[in-house]
Amino acid sequence: MSGVVVQNIPRAAPAVIKGLAEAGVATVHEAQGRTGLLASHIRPIQQGVAVAGSAVTILAPPGDNWMLHVAIEQLREGDILVLGVTAPSDAGYFGDLLATSAMARGCRGLVIDAGVRDVADLRAMGFPVWSKAVSAQGTVNETLGSVNVPVICAGALVNPGDVVVADDDGVCVVAREAAEAVLKKARARIAAEEEKRRRLAAGELGLDMYDMRGRLAAKGLKYV
Amino acid sequence: MSGVVVQNIPRAAPAVIKGLAEAGVATVHEAQGRTGLLASHIRPIQQGVAVAGSAVTILAPPGDNWMLHVAIEQLREGDILVLGVTAPSDAGYFGDLLATSAMARGCRGLVIDAGVRDVADLRAMGFPVWSKAVSAQGTVNETLGSVNVPVICAGALVNPGDVVVADDDGVCVVAREAAEAVLKKARARIAAEEEKRRRLAAGELGLDMYDMRGRLAAKGLKYV
Amino acid sequence: MSGVVVQNIPRAAPAVIKGLAEAGVATVHEAQGRTGLLASHIRPIQQGVAVAGSAVTILAPPGDNWMLHVAIEQLREGDILVLGVTAPSDAGYFGDLLATSAMARGCRGLVIDAGVRDVADLRAMGFPVWSKAVSAQGTVNETLGSVNVPVICAGALVNPGDVVVADDDGVCVVAREAAEAVLKKARARIAAEEEKRRRLAAGELGLDMYDMRGRLAAKGLKYV
Amino acid sequence: MSGVVVQNIPRAAPAVIKGLAEAGVATVHEAQGRTGLLASHIRPIQQGVAVAGSAVTILAPPGDNWMLHVAIEQLREGDILVLGVTAPSDAGYFGDLLATSAMARGCRGLVIDAGVRDVADLRAMGFPVWSKAVSAQGTVNETLGSVNVPVICAGALVNPGDVVVADDDGVCVVAREAAEAVLKKARARIAAEEEKRRRLAAGELGLDMYDMRGRLAAKGLKYV
Amino acid sequence: MSGVVVQNIPRAAPAVIKGLAEAGVATVHEAQGRTGLLASHIRPIQQGVAVAGSAVTILAPPGDNWMLHVAIEQLREGDILVLGVTAPSDAGYFGDLLATSAMARGCRGLVIDAGVRDVADLRAMGFPVWSKAVSAQGTVNETLGSVNVPVICAGALVNPGDVVVADDDGVCVVAREAAEAVLKKARARIAAEEEKRRRLAAGELGLDMYDMRGRLAAKGLKYV
Amino acid sequence: MSGVVVQNIPRAAPAVIKGLAEAGVATVHEAQGRTGLLASHIRPIQQGVAVAGSAVTILAPPGDNWMLHVAIEQLREGDILVLGVTAPSDAGYFGDLLATSAMARGCRGLVIDAGVRDVADLRAMGFPVWSKAVSAQGTVNETLGSVNVPVICAGALVNPGDVVVADDDGVCVVAREAAEAVLKKARARIAAEEEKRRRLAAGELGLDMYDMRGRLAAKGLKYV
Repeated sequence: MSGVVVQNIPRAAPAVIKGLAEAGVATVHEAQGRTGLLASHIRPIQQGVAVAGSAVTILAPPGDNWMLHVAIEQLREGDILVLGVTAPSDAGYFGDLLATSAMARGCRGLVIDAGVRDVADLRAMGFPVWSKAVSAQGTVNETLGSVNVPVICAGALVNPGDVVVADDDGVCVVAREAAEAVLKKARARIAAEEEKRRRLAAGELGLDMYDMRGRLAAKGLKYV
Repeated sequence: MSGVVVQNIPRAAPAVIKGLAEAGVATVHEAQGRTGLLASHIRPIQQGVAVAGSAVTILAPPGDNWMLHVAIEQLREGDILVLGVTAPSDAGYFGDLLATSAMARGCRGLVIDAGVRDVADLRAMGFPVWSKAVSAQGTVNETLGSVNVPVICAGALVNPGDVVVADDDGVCVVAREAAEAVLKKARARIAAEEEKRRRLAAGELGLDMYDMRGRLAAKGLKYV
Repeated sequence: MSGVVVQNIPRAAPAVIKGLAEAGVATVHEAQGRTGLLASHIRPIQQGVAVAGSAVTILAPPGDNWMLHVAIEQLREGDILVLGVTAPSDAGYFGDLLATSAMARGCRGLVIDAGVRDVADLRAMGFPVWSKAVSAQGTVNETLGSVNVPVICAGALVNPGDVVVADDDGVCVVAREAAEAVLKKARARIAAEEEKRRRLAAGELGLDMYDMRGRLAAKGLKYV
Repeated sequence: MSGVVVQNIPRAAPAVIKGLAEAGVATVHEAQGRTGLLASHIRPIQQGVAVAGSAVTILAPPGDNWMLHVAIEQLREGDILVLGVTAPSDAGYFGDLLATSAMARGCRGLVIDAGVRDVADLRAMGFPVWSKAVSAQGTVNETLGSVNVPVICAGALVNPGDVVVADDDGVCVVAREAAEAVLKKARARIAAEEEKRRRLAAGELGLDMYDMRGRLAAKGLKYV
Repeated sequence: MSGVVVQNIPRAAPAVIKGLAEAGVATVHEAQGRTGLLASHIRPIQQGVAVAGSAVTILAPPGDNWMLHVAIEQLREGDILVLGVTAPSDAGYFGDLLATSAMARGCRGLVIDAGVRDVADLRAMGFPVWSKAVSAQGTVNETLGSVNVPVICAGALVNPGDVVVADDDGVCVVAREAAEAVLKKARARIAAEEEKRRRLAAGELGLDMYDMRGRLAAKGLKYV
Repeated sequence: MSGVVVQNIPRAAPAVIKGLAEAGVATVHEAQGRTGLLASHIRPIQQGVAVAGSAVTILAPPGDNWMLHVAIEQLREGDILVLGVTAPSDAGYFGDLLATSAMARGCRGLVIDAGVRDVADLRAMGFPVWSKAVSAQGTVNETLGSVNVPVICAGALVNPGDVVVADDDGVCVVAREAAEAVLKKARARIAAEEEKRRRLAAGELGLDMYDMRGRLAAKGLKYV
């Protein structure tokens, strides 16, 4: 699967993607049955940014960022770059020049199971990144990888065109075909939570609201 | 010790707790003989917040946040939830709904040797958290733990009612019975440091102020 | 090499040091052939600060900060303290009192392959730190180390008087003798990047600008 | 995909599986273009065992080994259990009772991105395991997962029926459909290596045998 | 609690300790309700050794092994040294000389949340060790700790005189007062497992033996 | 310093090297003032082997083992290959073919701050390795590094021709110029330890033998 660039990938509807961004990572993760979460070592370099977009995927060798240059040509407005590696690397695959280029193509952000650099510039440019590391370590352009093939990024399978949702909690991926259904469930969940939040804020206990006392007692919980 | 909720725990005097919050983690840790510090993998999700409160402790199974619901009922104004696990977990035990409920009961914060989610909301709500991880990963409600029993959290023993001090440096726990004495020592330390700070800022060297030169020479330090 | 303080060390020219600070870590690292980078576990406790200075080096035992007191006497305006350890430690070697003293001597910051404490104070004072950990854990003054000897800090060799460049990307060290030449290369690189940035922002692809298509095809990249 | 057991999965031909076991992990990984390798945190609990078998896959919640009981019913002679988790866990999912049961069904081993226990017994029984951790920590039977669905195990995608190759170097997975072709390439590689080994043992240099000197000189390598 | 040596500690009955050693870590951990397990980063330096003994506890500063010398005087036949640290350290606190001395006092082994050295000698002498690291790094004798006070070792609370059980699966601690009751439960468990092992070896499925099918179906498990 | 091969390096006398191997890592590390130890993440792939040899050093890019081929030509009887990386990598740089070649040139072993593969073969061949990881992951031959320049390997500076001592405790490097003096001290240490071992084995306490009681009491140690 190495050395391949898939050029035309299907994407989810913009309104669905927008809705998933608003729902956020935790809600989307729950709405799709607690799947699709990237490992918690993927952290945002900024604070307070929540986005969603279509995955343009990259499978890259360790310490080699050549395929990022190739992937940028495949970007469309609203895409998010997702880079998985064939072997672990903390090197700085991505910096302000690549971000300038990606933004010029409409890219909304980067999720990378490796390192990035120029993070002060990236924050100043408003280009959000979720990465495994921050490192100035340079990379080479020697070995082919692939673009828009299925990749595993931080333990999650990402297919090109899947919807990537990212915020301060981390990153969740939603299969493109399921995106609309997941959004529907996420919205139902949000609506239900609104009422719960109001009741909890008023002092009602979760023990009562969720009707947990009986089951706790049945399991043997003792108050002393 | 599993499946037990201790309902009425003694707490330290509010004025003592307030004084320990003002002293801060590093000073309190020193004042009680360098004990009580939680491991440095516990990090704040916010910046610039310093609090202290009485520990309502939770012993929870990995990936199961049921006991948090139980613990919230035990909260009183000024308490801090402290959650230790029976086996390691990075899952997101706590989010904005539980924080809403805890805040409604007067809770001042959470210290957790596991993960939390909805961190953007938690920061916006002003609910401070010190955690091992940030993760959207959901938890289950299947296995009992205990509330207000002694727990080990990030390598430190916390008894219910102990004073928990937390700031940007991390978290320190003070035994309830010792809290007043520790505060006294902390204040003495702060007073002494004020004078030292003034002298150091004026250019005096620690080598002279602490009278270190003789002992360094005796150990064999050579200037070349 | 233990128990030695070298008192007079040569330093690079202030204008060169200033130029390297402006170039930043990633550019300097590239300009000197991708060497001198400290490991990515060294992270800033603040955001948005970029500095450079002459290294006053410290070789310290684990959990013992005695040599920091000794090193402060050796500081001159524009220096940066660089502390390497003889064995791993996350303890809090440095806090607000030492920072007060170091600032009074003109010190610009600290790079430490161990922990620091009082980080809220350090941020408020404007004293920048790059460290391995944040920990309130106190240290002792029992065992000698050395000051201004060559040290390995986070996997990089630092000689006293070397130029230390630090920003949000991490830390890079430049040999004093090479500093002027590296600055020249860094400036050439910056000038070249300016033009590239303009072209990429205008939508030109890196694939074309860097003339990568032929070599990619030769390696066998296939578009499907 | 949770709560599903796929009962009849296709498997590769026994002779192909046997051949891949003989080739070993490093050779198979190379023969299929350096793909399919599980992360290096997966380590054998024994030494000197090399096996291959058809993957019966398990997707399991953290700290919950219920699906292992379900999976054992699906085992046939020559299978290897492969367990991936929905969130990280080091708990001891598997011990001597499950191994007894799995061996009675013809199972050749276990690859698990979590912990195992009773390792002294497992070694004595000759049941090989490649795991992320050794831990006596018990697990629960509360939450469904799935059996024989595609799983990500230690960063690698494993489909049910894929050929799993495991030895002291770690674990590599070969897609069932590709297994015969990969074996052919692996055997060609082994044959070629035999001659190389003979020449190198006789003192010939890789620099000459692989004809590297020209390319090294072209890249600028200097002998001083 | 620093600077204290408790000289006469109660111990469990030798026959109970012997029984717990035979039961092993996993069984003892289960028999006492899944508590008392040390974190899985504690690993044996040898293979195939299973012991139990009374804990002589040590609370030691990072990189300082002075209290080990003090503790050895407190050893009696059948004791196990258990060392917890006041801050993390991987240094080599213990080697062949201390082992010689400890063996001369009847010590059965060492459990240490830090490093050891001379491991080839320790294995040759038959002195078993469970440690966090192997490191030749020397330690100092400068700062007091305590002996036979409650310590936290690898996340578990160990009181002096508690029974420490250690084998290839790791280490479990049993409260002295509970030791006899735990042994009784452990033996019941072993007896029950013997019958289960026989049935599983004969090909019976855990699904049937544990009567899991109904509950799995009720939770919604689907066979396809 | 990249792209350079230093061809003729001085080496220590064979008898000195042999003596250091017999002294072992812990003793040599102490004899030279507790310096030169590699970080404890470097572990042997075999058990019970103790060697020493002259360092032929390699500075290699991440995931690129080209320089190993170059280094083998520089080997002489009794050398040990020492590989440091310019950025972290766990890839399998070295396997049975390179070991065959190195052994044919008289090489005694490999110390590598990265991964190795074919470890079953390496153990069978009797070629000892101390590495950071075991991984089958292949490497490329694309980027130059250097041979026989000073390298930092696992946090320690190694100059070409330095004496590398390695056993089950890890790896220690001795400066070539200091090797004879260090050996002398190591032998004195061994002689002194022999007598101590005899006395400790006879039941004498370290507290008495090292005359520690007075200093402990002076520090405030209390027996209760």
